Amino acid sequence: MTSTTEELLALDRAAQDLLFRAARTANAFTDEPVDDAQVRAVHDLIRYGPTAMNAQPLRVLLLRSPEARARLLPYVSAGNRDKTATAPLTAVLAADVDWHDRLPELFPHRAGARDWFAGDPAGREVQARFNAALQIGYLVIGVRAAGLAAGPMAGFDPAGVEREFFPDGRHRALLLMNIGRPAVDAWRERLPRLPYEDVVTEL
Amino acid sequence: MTSTTEELLALDRAAQDLLFRAARTANAFTDEPVDDAQVRAVHDLIRYGPTAMNAQPLRVLLLRSPEARARLLPYVSAGNRDKTATAPLTAVLAADVDWHDRLPELFPHRAGARDWFAGDPAGREVQARFNAALQIGYLVIGVRAAGLAAGPMAGFDPAGVEREFFPDGRHRALLLMNIGRPAVDAWRERLPRLPYEDVVTEL
Repeated sequence: MTSTTEELLALDRAAQDLLFRAARTANAFTDEPVDDAQVRAVHDLIRYGPTAMNAQPLRVLLLRSPEARARLLPYVSAGNRDKTATAPLTAVLAADVDWHDRLPELFPHRAGARDWFAGDPAGREVQARFNAALQIGYLVIGVRAAGLAAGPMAGFDPAGVEREFFPDGRHRALLLMNIGRPAVDAWRERLPRLPYEDVVTEL
Repeated sequence: MTSTTEELLALDRAAQDLLFRAARTANAFTDEPVDDAQVRAVHDLIRYGPTAMNAQPLRVLLLRSPEARARLLPYVSAGNRDKTATAPLTAVLAADVDWHDRLPELFPHRAGARDWFAGDPAGREVQARFNAALQIGYLVIGVRAAGLAAGPMAGFDPAGVEREFFPDGRHRALLLMNIGRPAVDAWRERLPRLPYEDVVTEL
């Protein structure tokens, strides 16, 4: 970090470090449990994050018991299996493709909004995936805000997870996330990040 | 917010409010400019947010001048046009579908990673959209961390924006975002958020 960054941000330095700079994706966790009150506190914070049409399509399935975890492991890639079996908590992060059914409550000032999307399941799925991914971004930050480490994992079989956990057919499994306190050897050296000039351009 | 939430989070209350609870999507901005140093500070913070395979597919095109803005407005939905014409800064947020070309540098411990994806443009596009959306989630938080307000907008013509600004064909326009200091009348009453029980379930 440059001193300029610290000075230019309204967020205090400790919070900058907690959420971004010192935070890391954890691959190993201590045995300390993550309880419901902590998960509720994370939700209570991140639910204010914006989504298009206030649709909030993210759904979170918590797997804690050995029995619940055992149902997930066959669909997890080999490299992610051990840490997923032993993390204090694993969340399956999914998008509800029937998010439009909640619009009368969530977007009440547009009375007909639900019906615009009723005949467009393909469009709903695109929006569900995009907005739920935004919310997963907020969730990563929220888990860190709780003093916990997130271990998001894309290496799994989404179709298998959907069959096993979402037989209603209205959810798409987007990501798995282990959550807990990082173990001593929870991560390797940080991978390089793209410089500003490769990400941001001005026309 | 319940007092429980505040107590259970490691992030201090002022930061909770700045990033989530008091923060709002802005629809009107003051004339105060957003300068490059502020945008660099936001990038310098959020670039640490995790992405699958450290791919970091988000690309940001800043439109500041009236000439640059005028090229965007025809593709913006009518309801978003005025605020986009007058915001201090508008960002076009896009995903680079050729993100795999950077893997030798960004994911160096897997020598062959780039080649796994070279023949799978459809799979790359899915991953580009998902990981860039995660990064847009971090960006919303980062803009707020700089004491600014974000005005993300999904109401625009992505194909038109891609033709106009990304003729290389390797970028997908995902979202527009106005950035600045909120005007006095920047937002209406906050829309309802889903309760915990409707979002989180435990198996």
